[in-house]
Amino acid sequence: MRGWPPALRRLIAELSRLPGIGEKTASRLALFIFDQEGSFAENLAAALLAVKDEVRRCTRCQGLSEGPLCEICSDPTRDTHLLCVVQSVADQLAIERTGAFHAQYHVLKGLIRPLDGIGPEDIGLSSVVERVASEEIQEVLIATSASVEGEATAMYLRRLLEPTSVVISRIARGLPLGGEVEFADRATLGRALQSRERIGSDD
Amino acid sequence: MRGWPPALRRLIAELSRLPGIGEKTASRLALFIFDQEGSFAENLAAALLAVKDEVRRCTRCQGLSEGPLCEICSDPTRDTHLLCVVQSVADQLAIERTGAFHAQYHVLKGLIRPLDGIGPEDIGLSSVVERVASEEIQEVLIATSASVEGEATAMYLRRLLEPTSVVISRIARGLPLGGEVEFADRATLGRALQSRERIGSDD
Repeated sequence: MRGWPPALRRLIAELSRLPGIGEKTASRLALFIFDQEGSFAENLAAALLAVKDEVRRCTRCQGLSEGPLCEICSDPTRDTHLLCVVQSVADQLAIERTGAFHAQYHVLKGLIRPLDGIGPEDIGLSSVVERVASEEIQEVLIATSASVEGEATAMYLRRLLEPTSVVISRIARGLPLGGEVEFADRATLGRALQSRERIGSDD
Repeated sequence: MRGWPPALRRLIAELSRLPGIGEKTASRLALFIFDQEGSFAENLAAALLAVKDEVRRCTRCQGLSEGPLCEICSDPTRDTHLLCVVQSVADQLAIERTGAFHAQYHVLKGLIRPLDGIGPEDIGLSSVVERVASEEIQEVLIATSASVEGEATAMYLRRLLEPTSVVISRIARGLPLGGEVEFADRATLGRALQSRERIGSDD
């Protein structure tokens, strides 16, 4: 980038640090930002600073919040007997988007990854047990991914919770909706057969 | 994004205005930025503001600059007899990266697009003619894209320059390096045959 103004090079370098943005995309974005009329760059800069100033972790669920308690935790219309454990706020958002869940969340800091030295304490698993002990939770729904690490984390949390009287459940695994049996991978198909659901006169 | 802090929603909205960034990518980027330790967001915000404050168009070539003249225009070691006309600073960067060009540039504001009402004056074609009249330019190399609009703009500029005594050239079109004759599209192959280069004893 010889011949390019240092300020532009610096913006390209900063943008390149975002996930999935290489130097080529960063250059394109930086030129786009430079070429915008009006206060485009100023608005984006203000939004960046506001996020760091105004957003924090909810003290109860570890989700995103502007006050001590997030909007979900402070919503009195939500069921307080069911707690959904997710591995990230992105997953929490995905579940909220379905509109099918109207209870509490607990957001872990990712999944257990022994090979990277990340254990149960690093992702905050014990705070789930603490919430079960101190709140009126009757069921913990573990909604970590159906990956190896997601299953391992779910299993570990299940063991932590088994001494309590809480019902433990796991998000269902099977054919995705619209999925063809013929093209499902073997592991998914095996799980879908094993976890078959009864249908019939009681439906 | 119900349940999400307004500041985060605003950052996602601002990021979504960047080209090629949809709401899903913007959410991922916003969460990444929020999760960074240290002054990541502050650095990116500062870089954004600095670009608008410190970068401007070079008064001579219309490329990017921090002062009235850009680094390329003020470089005394570059050839001042050859002027390369490009359609964007991104194209200028691509040519600089080759290391094969060490002369002057002129950056147009895009290409002529009659259907969108964008004519020769809107992209600054006449300033090329003015530079040819006032500087010691001997050759104008037109390096617009090999697209329909790129060719039309090149042809228009050629007509503007023909009354002057300057040599007019066009960036070569043919097989890309490593390209297979068998898989080249018909237009490229036709052009590559027509623009064949003599090789032989004088090489």
